[in-house]
Amino acid sequence: MTYCVGMQLDVGMVFLSDSRTNAGVDHISTFRKTFVFEQPGDRVLVLMTSGNLAVTQAMVSMLKSRLHAGDDVESLYNVPDMFAAARHVGDTLREVHQRDAEGLAAFSIEFNAAIILGGQIKGEAPRMFTIYAAGNFIETTPETTYFQIGESKYGKPIIDRTVTRRTTMDDAVKCALISMDSTIKSNLSVGLPLDLVCVRTDEYKVALHENIDAANPYFSALRTRWGESLRHAFDELPKPEWLAGL
Amino acid sequence: MTYCVGMQLDVGMVFLSDSRTNAGVDHISTFRKTFVFEQPGDRVLVLMTSGNLAVTQAMVSMLKSRLHAGDDVESLYNVPDMFAAARHVGDTLREVHQRDAEGLAAFSIEFNAAIILGGQIKGEAPRMFTIYAAGNFIETTPETTYFQIGESKYGKPIIDRTVTRRTTMDDAVKCALISMDSTIKSNLSVGLPLDLVCVRTDEYKVALHENIDAANPYFSALRTRWGESLRHAFDELPKPEWLAGL
Repeated sequence: MTYCVGMQLDVGMVFLSDSRTNAGVDHISTFRKTFVFEQPGDRVLVLMTSGNLAVTQAMVSMLKSRLHAGDDVESLYNVPDMFAAARHVGDTLREVHQRDAEGLAAFSIEFNAAIILGGQIKGEAPRMFTIYAAGNFIETTPETTYFQIGESKYGKPIIDRTVTRRTTMDDAVKCALISMDSTIKSNLSVGLPLDLVCVRTDEYKVALHENIDAANPYFSALRTRWGESLRHAFDELPKPEWLAGL
Repeated sequence: MTYCVGMQLDVGMVFLSDSRTNAGVDHISTFRKTFVFEQPGDRVLVLMTSGNLAVTQAMVSMLKSRLHAGDDVESLYNVPDMFAAARHVGDTLREVHQRDAEGLAAFSIEFNAAIILGGQIKGEAPRMFTIYAAGNFIETTPETTYFQIGESKYGKPIIDRTVTRRTTMDDAVKCALISMDSTIKSNLSVGLPLDLVCVRTDEYKVALHENIDAANPYFSALRTRWGESLRHAFDELPKPEWLAGL
């Protein structure tokens, strides 16, 4: 399993992914799920993957191999806008499907993948997409400003309560880390280290790419203090004294 | 979908269920999922159901029809202990399976059910079980003191952070209601009104059975204040100022 969250804000974008991959509980590995495609000054694209690792790695390999294959070959470095970039990723995923789906089906393995793609290409505003295994995709809107892939449920309530387009970058980072903490606490198949990427609007480059592991003092403090704060908030709520019989 | 949570504490048990049933988003109804079997002074059993409504209703009808069928017929009123009660419920579910599973399979409908059964029968301490569609079951332990069935993920983190065997009854009720609120916020298929049942250890009767709907002032206040407290706790956490570039 995996947990990745991408948030689109007025001031930029925040991407956070875990790095745990498992094929059964006795086969756990660390694989990065965040990939940056950057041409500073012209474009920055960030891609996070979940699902079957062989499928998503094949897709990423193909995306990378096309970057320097010349102007005749469509790639994330020459597509004209983010919509075309999402189509390019979807098409690449369909190529993997065409090649591998039948082989996987013979072993009853699902062709399973989900991708978050966000970024900005000169000439338009930043855009963020979720791309499905079928190669189709959806885009954020002002009302729905974030996407999650993988194990999304545990970490969803805190995002719903705190993040909108107007959220600052540091609040969004804080929220993404708390959301990740709730997920790691509840699901063994999501684990450290984390990849955190921030992109600022109209900068056309990565503002920050940080590797966060268990030794990170901020993340450790955040986890402890968030637990204490929740406990305190819980204690402060009124008791159900209206319940006769309690 | 459904969300039910049962908590076993030293002082007693708390049961909370929603009442939304859906067969597609255009077929939503209200059905109670909590059933009390009580012989004050001798035994009290509380049962909550999730899964295919036809399956669980059939099971409950059969459980009820046996209550007054005489001493020769095993029922929840004459089983000697809670382990036997869990077996009785599991066996009844297997009877439903025997009769209906093939018919359902012909329409590709899964035989799908999960049950929380908790209570106390004179002669032993209170016990709580989760019973699966196959009729097998597991029991709480001092380390794992609560069970959830249905849409369990959104509401799990707050329980993990606040409930142990030593939790008081009113804190457990508060926690169950917050857990339900997080679930209702995130999943349309979980909805009001709620059934709340509390049982106190060694009382052999229901201490409280409350119907909680949108007009309930405590639950409304709890939802609002919990949202505000979370938001406040979030604001009080340190910002990620260590992140150069933010």
